[in-house]
Amino acid sequence: MEERVEISILVDIYGTLLTEKQRDIMNLYYNEDLSLAEISEINNTSRQAIHDLTKRCHKLLLEYEEKLGLMAKSMAEENLRLRLLERLNQLKGMETKEDSKIIIEDIIDIIENI
Amino acid sequence: MEERVEISILVDIYGTLLTEKQRDIMNLYYNEDLSLAEISEINNTSRQAIHDLTKRCHKLLLEYEEKLGLMAKSMAEENLRLRLLERLNQLKGMETKEDSKIIIEDIIDIIENI
Repeated sequence: MEERVEISILVDIYGTLLTEKQRDIMNLYYNEDLSLAEISEINNTSRQAIHDLTKRCHKLLLEYEEKLGLMAKSMAEENLRLRLLERLNQLKGMETKEDSKIIIEDIIDIIENI
Repeated sequence: MEERVEISILVDIYGTLLTEKQRDIMNLYYNEDLSLAEISEINNTSRQAIHDLTKRCHKLLLEYEEKLGLMAKSMAEENLRLRLLERLNQLKGMETKEDSKIIIEDIIDIIENI
């Protein structure tokens, strides 16, 4: 996975564990694509200070992922969900009775809302 | 949920975010049911120090749950899993074709291993 994409996902997952200021700056840089110069202007600080903060937060986010593994879990769950949906679609193609189809639709609905 | 049970679950979920010493003591107290006196003896410290540590850690764990909500998510997922299994069992009772049954068993197997 591209590093910027990975950091953006980690901010979404663990952002609440950062301070409000850290979270805001990480969001501006990784999710809203502002430049370091733009963010430093907004925060009345130097480009270097913002750069250091993003590096420090990136390290923190990686530590959280190492400890809790929520990004990895979320990817595994997504794979599982796709596998289940594939199986359910196969089942639907097998001319089961009408009642069965209603239940199968219900299962798909439940899974899609995980 | 009883407080001791809740704290025990929170230690399982967020224990990696505590220091090793904090995690050990919380595990001894909440998961292995040692008394404060026994734990203080093991750690060569006072009963009061262990008591304070467990209170501090309990507060920390509640803060993590407030920020990440993993215990609540896990309970919601468990409910969903039970709902899915119930639906699949209903489906099984509906005299679907043999091929369908194999797939249904497969779905149950996948869900049981979430």
